[in-house]
Amino acid sequence: MNYTLNSIPERATKPRERGFTMAMDKGLSIREVEDFLEVAGDYVDIVKLGWATSFVTPNLKKKLEVYRAAGIPTYFGGTLFEAFIVRNQFDDYRRVLDQYEMTFAEVSDGSLEMAHDEKCEYIAKLSEQVTVLSEVGSKDAEKIIPPYMWIKLMKAELEAGAWKVIGEAREGGNVGLFRSTGEVRSGLVEEILTQIPFEKILWEAPQKAQQVWFIKLLGANVNLGNIAPSEVIPLETIRLGLRGDTFSHFLDMEKPC
Amino acid sequence: MNYTLNSIPERATKPRERGFTMAMDKGLSIREVEDFLEVAGDYVDIVKLGWATSFVTPNLKKKLEVYRAAGIPTYFGGTLFEAFIVRNQFDDYRRVLDQYEMTFAEVSDGSLEMAHDEKCEYIAKLSEQVTVLSEVGSKDAEKIIPPYMWIKLMKAELEAGAWKVIGEAREGGNVGLFRSTGEVRSGLVEEILTQIPFEKILWEAPQKAQQVWFIKLLGANVNLGNIAPSEVIPLETIRLGLRGDTFSHFLDMEKPC
Amino acid sequence: MNYTLNSIPERATKPRERGFTMAMDKGLSIREVEDFLEVAGDYVDIVKLGWATSFVTPNLKKKLEVYRAAGIPTYFGGTLFEAFIVRNQFDDYRRVLDQYEMTFAEVSDGSLEMAHDEKCEYIAKLSEQVTVLSEVGSKDAEKIIPPYMWIKLMKAELEAGAWKVIGEAREGGNVGLFRSTGEVRSGLVEEILTQIPFEKILWEAPQKAQQVWFIKLLGANVNLGNIAPSEVIPLETIRLGLRGDTFSHFLDMEKPC
Repeated sequence: MNYTLNSIPERATKPRERGFTMAMDKGLSIREVEDFLEVAGDYVDIVKLGWATSFVTPNLKKKLEVYRAAGIPTYFGGTLFEAFIVRNQFDDYRRVLDQYEMTFAEVSDGSLEMAHDEKCEYIAKLSEQVTVLSEVGSKDAEKIIPPYMWIKLMKAELEAGAWKVIGEAREGGNVGLFRSTGEVRSGLVEEILTQIPFEKILWEAPQKAQQVWFIKLLGANVNLGNIAPSEVIPLETIRLGLRGDTFSHFLDMEKPC
Repeated sequence: MNYTLNSIPERATKPRERGFTMAMDKGLSIREVEDFLEVAGDYVDIVKLGWATSFVTPNLKKKLEVYRAAGIPTYFGGTLFEAFIVRNQFDDYRRVLDQYEMTFAEVSDGSLEMAHDEKCEYIAKLSEQVTVLSEVGSKDAEKIIPPYMWIKLMKAELEAGAWKVIGEAREGGNVGLFRSTGEVRSGLVEEILTQIPFEKILWEAPQKAQQVWFIKLLGANVNLGNIAPSEVIPLETIRLGLRGDTFSHFLDMEKPC
Repeated sequence: MNYTLNSIPERATKPRERGFTMAMDKGLSIREVEDFLEVAGDYVDIVKLGWATSFVTPNLKKKLEVYRAAGIPTYFGGTLFEAFIVRNQFDDYRRVLDQYEMTFAEVSDGSLEMAHDEKCEYIAKLSEQVTVLSEVGSKDAEKIIPPYMWIKLMKAELEAGAWKVIGEAREGGNVGLFRSTGEVRSGLVEEILTQIPFEKILWEAPQKAQQVWFIKLLGANVNLGNIAPSEVIPLETIRLGLRGDTFSHFLDMEKPC
């Protein structure tokens, strides 16, 4: 840190199991990735190349190398997995992961219908090849999954081999964990946490109010995802109680003297 | 493309008459233009220097050269044309176009009152010098133009020499084609399309929901404009059915096996 | 300017007491700062490193040098001052200002409770060391300060030594001067202006509609702050009547012939 402030919440350090930040790259240039890592390299733990943007990004190999050189793992968004599955191209997908030397992958069913057994089989198979993040929750705002079902799905996916489960919110933060207004479905989150260890969950929380809500409930070291590259530094200050939104929250807890 | 996915909608290739993307540069630096073109150069067909930002941009000549070297034509936003017209400086405007070696220009009347005959004369005169895009629709949310009038205006402007007509939406996407909420005036769009060939229209659609709406109605190769530079890659995935929003749309149509 | 347009509102030039633009850097990389200054260096008068982002920004010294070399002063957001105060580290804060050779500082009480006498003492003390901007208004949307109190606080802070007083709006533009919807509390602003000279006030106005509102009320040379780096060029065009929003405003006033 650039100077000393007392009573700052303790932050997990890399490699982090808790308090990690997943950022979403939806088409950065090489130089933009370098700029992003210069500023946020210490605070970002993993980068998702959003949905299937990797299909059209011209600089893919080079970009992945820049992230790799900085020690930041990357993975392709779950929609890409689904795009291969819906076309019966699962083996092609596995080859693409090899071709680009990916060490992580996401398994999701946000845009298609898939029996949950089948999804868990994909998690198990891909876990032999890479570290798997699996995502629960639909991208369709009409599909409301009740809390007990979120828990059941998350447990099964972790048992099938998922490293962490992701709570779906999309880039916009308006489905899954959130109402269409962006408001958190707070009862849902609290019920999930009675059954699933909090370090196993990566909450997608692209909007500031959502990040604040999770940090107030779960502390500086909650895992948050779908963070825009330019919002990683702001998020870090929210985690540390150094932005108005959480300024009093940690002080009230820690009573600095 | 970086890997092979079956049953991807066929995309027009450059130079495109259909399916082209107009992006809006509202003050990028030289390096930001280079970054933008590195990533999106294959997907962007023309760049508008938004409204009269070219008046205050310090790096104008150099920036135009960077776009030119990449084979991407540029034009000044219609508000600049109007700023010259309202000051009785049309001849100065023509000289500015020459001075900066512009090959395209926009004629619009979004911020001033102009007889339509007069607008068509400007289109005709400028067509002798450059390729003209003309814009229909007011920037004033209070001014509702009925569908038959949109059609009449568009026809007259194409006859006067406009290469394409632009449906107004502003940078914010909340006027003209759209209600103040950003919702598409869908009856208006459908009625226009009964009379004007769809490749002759460039729809301003800065918001994702608007892009999705046009792509679902008119397909991957609809002409869309006012796209933020960082949204050109995301838009390309929406065109290809590779983002959640259009994921099922093209599959349902094409029944991949 | 790149070409000549008649009847453009006269703009104050640097160093400006009126019409200055404060931009907010919330974590730019060195190269992004260079890009920002290439484009907006002539139009931005001072840069705030938003709230306490300077605590976590890895490139702080270097970044401050880049701004300094371009002749743009910088200051740390008021939340950083408050973070030191709430921890009883005021002397440390003064040392940090020295360590980073800061020539400006902000005194605010947006996130904590502080007697106003005490706030004015901080303003007086820091004024011996740097030029002080002080901020009036809470970051808490629930705390509504009546107009007579805004005026009383502003007067006292200017008398205590503040160079300018800032009207609070946050990065989001939804508290203080603004309702939670972002709408301007216009009666409040007008009443303040009956008592405080307008060049002494820096209005935080991050949203375009807010910028437009202030420029229509107070002219091209109103002091505006919390402007995103990419919005400095667009703001400049709004000041000059060269964007749709203020296109007619200045023309109606000046009757160009």
